[in-house]
Amino acid sequence: MSKVGVIMGSDSDLPIMQEAIDILKGFDIEVEVDIVSAHRTPEKLYDYSKNAHTRGIRVIIAGAGGAAHLPGMVASMSPLPVIGVPVKSRNSIDGWDSILSILQMPGGVPVATVALDGAKNAGILAAQIIGTSDTCVLDKILVYKEGLKIKVEAAAKNLKR
Amino acid sequence: MSKVGVIMGSDSDLPIMQEAIDILKGFDIEVEVDIVSAHRTPEKLYDYSKNAHTRGIRVIIAGAGGAAHLPGMVASMSPLPVIGVPVKSRNSIDGWDSILSILQMPGGVPVATVALDGAKNAGILAAQIIGTSDTCVLDKILVYKEGLKIKVEAAAKNLKR
Amino acid sequence: MSKVGVIMGSDSDLPIMQEAIDILKGFDIEVEVDIVSAHRTPEKLYDYSKNAHTRGIRVIIAGAGGAAHLPGMVASMSPLPVIGVPVKSRNSIDGWDSILSILQMPGGVPVATVALDGAKNAGILAAQIIGTSDTCVLDKILVYKEGLKIKVEAAAKNLKR
Amino acid sequence: MSKVGVIMGSDSDLPIMQEAIDILKGFDIEVEVDIVSAHRTPEKLYDYSKNAHTRGIRVIIAGAGGAAHLPGMVASMSPLPVIGVPVKSRNSIDGWDSILSILQMPGGVPVATVALDGAKNAGILAAQIIGTSDTCVLDKILVYKEGLKIKVEAAAKNLKR
Amino acid sequence: MSKVGVIMGSDSDLPIMQEAIDILKGFDIEVEVDIVSAHRTPEKLYDYSKNAHTRGIRVIIAGAGGAAHLPGMVASMSPLPVIGVPVKSRNSIDGWDSILSILQMPGGVPVATVALDGAKNAGILAAQIIGTSDTCVLDKILVYKEGLKIKVEAAAKNLKR
Amino acid sequence: MSKVGVIMGSDSDLPIMQEAIDILKGFDIEVEVDIVSAHRTPEKLYDYSKNAHTRGIRVIIAGAGGAAHLPGMVASMSPLPVIGVPVKSRNSIDGWDSILSILQMPGGVPVATVALDGAKNAGILAAQIIGTSDTCVLDKILVYKEGLKIKVEAAAKNLKR
Amino acid sequence: MSKVGVIMGSDSDLPIMQEAIDILKGFDIEVEVDIVSAHRTPEKLYDYSKNAHTRGIRVIIAGAGGAAHLPGMVASMSPLPVIGVPVKSRNSIDGWDSILSILQMPGGVPVATVALDGAKNAGILAAQIIGTSDTCVLDKILVYKEGLKIKVEAAAKNLKR
Amino acid sequence: MSKVGVIMGSDSDLPIMQEAIDILKGFDIEVEVDIVSAHRTPEKLYDYSKNAHTRGIRVIIAGAGGAAHLPGMVASMSPLPVIGVPVKSRNSIDGWDSILSILQMPGGVPVATVALDGAKNAGILAAQIIGTSDTCVLDKILVYKEGLKIKVEAAAKNLKR
Repeated sequence: MSKVGVIMGSDSDLPIMQEAIDILKGFDIEVEVDIVSAHRTPEKLYDYSKNAHTRGIRVIIAGAGGAAHLPGMVASMSPLPVIGVPVKSRNSIDGWDSILSILQMPGGVPVATVALDGAKNAGILAAQIIGTSDTCVLDKILVYKEGLKIKVEAAAKNLKR
Repeated sequence: MSKVGVIMGSDSDLPIMQEAIDILKGFDIEVEVDIVSAHRTPEKLYDYSKNAHTRGIRVIIAGAGGAAHLPGMVASMSPLPVIGVPVKSRNSIDGWDSILSILQMPGGVPVATVALDGAKNAGILAAQIIGTSDTCVLDKILVYKEGLKIKVEAAAKNLKR
Repeated sequence: MSKVGVIMGSDSDLPIMQEAIDILKGFDIEVEVDIVSAHRTPEKLYDYSKNAHTRGIRVIIAGAGGAAHLPGMVASMSPLPVIGVPVKSRNSIDGWDSILSILQMPGGVPVATVALDGAKNAGILAAQIIGTSDTCVLDKILVYKEGLKIKVEAAAKNLKR
Repeated sequence: MSKVGVIMGSDSDLPIMQEAIDILKGFDIEVEVDIVSAHRTPEKLYDYSKNAHTRGIRVIIAGAGGAAHLPGMVASMSPLPVIGVPVKSRNSIDGWDSILSILQMPGGVPVATVALDGAKNAGILAAQIIGTSDTCVLDKILVYKEGLKIKVEAAAKNLKR
Repeated sequence: MSKVGVIMGSDSDLPIMQEAIDILKGFDIEVEVDIVSAHRTPEKLYDYSKNAHTRGIRVIIAGAGGAAHLPGMVASMSPLPVIGVPVKSRNSIDGWDSILSILQMPGGVPVATVALDGAKNAGILAAQIIGTSDTCVLDKILVYKEGLKIKVEAAAKNLKR
Repeated sequence: MSKVGVIMGSDSDLPIMQEAIDILKGFDIEVEVDIVSAHRTPEKLYDYSKNAHTRGIRVIIAGAGGAAHLPGMVASMSPLPVIGVPVKSRNSIDGWDSILSILQMPGGVPVATVALDGAKNAGILAAQIIGTSDTCVLDKILVYKEGLKIKVEAAAKNLKR
Repeated sequence: MSKVGVIMGSDSDLPIMQEAIDILKGFDIEVEVDIVSAHRTPEKLYDYSKNAHTRGIRVIIAGAGGAAHLPGMVASMSPLPVIGVPVKSRNSIDGWDSILSILQMPGGVPVATVALDGAKNAGILAAQIIGTSDTCVLDKILVYKEGLKIKVEAAAKNLKR
Repeated sequence: MSKVGVIMGSDSDLPIMQEAIDILKGFDIEVEVDIVSAHRTPEKLYDYSKNAHTRGIRVIIAGAGGAAHLPGMVASMSPLPVIGVPVKSRNSIDGWDSILSILQMPGGVPVATVALDGAKNAGILAAQIIGTSDTCVLDKILVYKEGLKIKVEAAAKNLKR
């Protein structure tokens, strides 16, 4: 079965990253959560990145703030698609540092970057990637999108009343 | 066979987007290229987004500049993973408008954003997504990454001489 | 009779957009309010934009935050003047994403952008547009501007006391 | 007959502002062009703004760069809709000063701001405003939008060949 | 006797601008305070700017926020030195709009800009300008600077204890 | 007779700063030019700042780029009004570093900041300061402003032909 | 014995700068703390910078906010390595002014800049500099880094439970 | 003998980084140059960082552009002081990405950041660090600073002629 690895640089990122975990569980996708700090546990970073694809993980979601090197460093060592979540951490300069140090990767080593604090979208994107080869997940995504529409229509109806 | 759809808002984006096409061809992945303008051909945008997944496309790469709505609008109507390439077009404000209008998508509708003018990385990311269910492509990515290393080592040797 | 259409991407934008509704009602201009999400109800976006001018709407005010595609997408499909209100939504990066993704439209598809959270000014601008062919509304605008002056003069008098 | 007033702060803005003039002429709308500097001809600014609506002008397009006060000052004294074009002049800081000093008008005095150097879109927007009460111009805008689509379709066909 | 004119665009700017008034009174310089809105009282702006130098005012301090046109417009019509105070008003984008629309004046019409919300420094600068021809004020400035030093030295002593 | 001191951090700033010198000479104001580097000649900085007011200098214009400390450091040691010119030097980040390190002075030590590369305006501002106590210079400023208007009117006439 | 000098522009910077003091004490490195204001005590700045290296200080840490000239001015007069801490003070524009006026020093006069409010890292960096010639301190840094890893591993274990 | 390690992410960074090498050689300090790419040679990064201090290197200078992870990743694994040089590479967004991803390191792992493209200052800073325990190098720095002063004085003399 497909698994998504969700990692973050610090447990202070968990409140944000939990949204990725929740949405993936909602799609019945198995999630493996861990804390991997690029700057404080570099050996674990190497082990995690080199081996994730050999034990059933198919997509990696990595969240980090400030000079956020975790997503890019994982991407440098793993053949899997890596989704980067820029986290607006306590010391971040309005999130610009988190965004730019995840987004602006050099040619050869992509990171799929989502919006600032956009862990929920990271989860959906991971599900869409699983869905490229799993029609059951693809169908759930179509249903999910239909649900978004219904909520807006309900709000519109409510507004007019 | 898996296909990647590469679309752009204007033919002036082609010099940048060609890098995505070239790298995908280098991985022997079929590419379908088209021009779809969110603002000038909105009906084509609807048709393309609604139907891409029904005719064998598995990942969509969309490049656009300025107030770049193409990637996000495709993502709103397709269940496929959409990779957005912010293009530093002639009228863009140093690329900030392109980046922010692709990256900052609302919860529910992710776009996998790569670096400014990062079409090459968009191609690699699409290949990695194909690779999550195609071990042949996964192996090519491992070889590609090995190739990056060899080039740096050659440059380092050259520098020391 | 002339109508102004006021739409927003989410009901969370209503507290801001209400200022446009209120000012238009103050000018005795009919307002039609709706929620239209570019990313969650793309078909409704299509219907709304294609048909607004056929049922008496003369100006459209569209408010959205983050990667704000609503005003530009409506402008791409409607011949009416579209006024865009960048909303500083919860996930916006200090409003820069909202502003740039509304303002920086490509040649051929203008959006009349007002200040961040400037829904009140969007309402006045819509009234001024109605006023270009309705001298009764034009006169109300002249009176409104006179009112602005009187308030400042009262504050100045108060300050000197 | 309806007229659009096109003014600019300096003749060095003319190469940009000419695009507004050309597009309006293409829609057979009468244009009156002038140089009005907020900072160097403040009396002319006063006369122009107070009287434009009394001599047949229905929309004002004002372009300026740097600390661009012209559009906002005209808007403070005229009841007409004022479209502001931020010009990336020689001394502008990448256009940010021009954009912010036109866009961020206080409540009560709107300026319809278009993209940096977006004079062409200012012209189209002015035509759309005229079109709210002139079905002949409205029809021309529908034809113009159709023309945008045809150009993109031709480029797409060309790309596939 | 020399007078300094302190004006602001709205009475909501008073809490900031009061610091300029207080420091000038501390230097025994006469202050004349008024509210002059560039956008809501343009006629008063004209009168004030044209005549200030004829009734004993020697320096003008003007504070405004957002698209802050007051300092520059006064400078365009008065031969006096104008000090601009960018105010971080409620709708300002972190103060950038206030700063850029005051600072980036075109060649020929300078505004002496001080820091964001820097009304206190505007007052000191006005006193220094008076001091260029009034040795009594110049001496007070030398004493004031000495006072700054003494406060720091006391804090340093306190820290070491 | 009144003198204006014009200093700069490096002779590479001279092409910009020359504009201040030229305009002051045009007003028949005596100018004393020097190179004073805050970072490379700190002792000269000290001597210059402490003594300028004792030898007839009435206003100091200081230009510098990057981490531009010269204007602020002179202001910390001189009782004279100091005008700071942010120079967009070769290593400056689009001028933002120059602007912010001159503009954002702490309370107690103002620098009168002009636009990026705005040496010409620094010269005019210095003349206006001299003009607060020299009616001859004040009259020249009134004439200079009249000249600005005449140039714009000529350009306007030319445009209409 | 080696000493580190920790200075700041104002006692309001102490809560931030205390983190540098604490970490250095944790490494058993002697610290000398003082308040030195570039703008309010320029003579003390000169004395401090000229003499620090002659009385046993081996590294200087200087923290300041806004137009932060202290670190650069000390660096201009001392042969010692100077570490600059940009402080996000009350009047700072989100810290950008503090960062740029410390970081962007001209060629010849470096300041070792750390993150916004990064006083803790300034302390560690100073210890690392001492460690280049003191193996006892070097060993403590290796132990410190090991401690960072252990904390992350504990948090990871906790997360999995 | 003390050695400084100079590394860069790509040989395209060499023209910038050469300035660090040249200045260090001018101080008679041994330099070891290498190319180490965080993203393309992660194993070499690991080896280099873990071992540099064991073979006589006392300070590391690391230059990189875009999402510049090299300096921070070296700092995470080496106990030595690491100086980071943000390089304005071809794909960098005006250097902001390079600066923020080097500067904004989390607590515990400092990088001594210098100005954009400031390799020369990185060399001087490394020499100053060596100088904290090598009076011969300290003396050379005092001489170097004297030389900066002499050049400015010569330029000042030249200007006055």
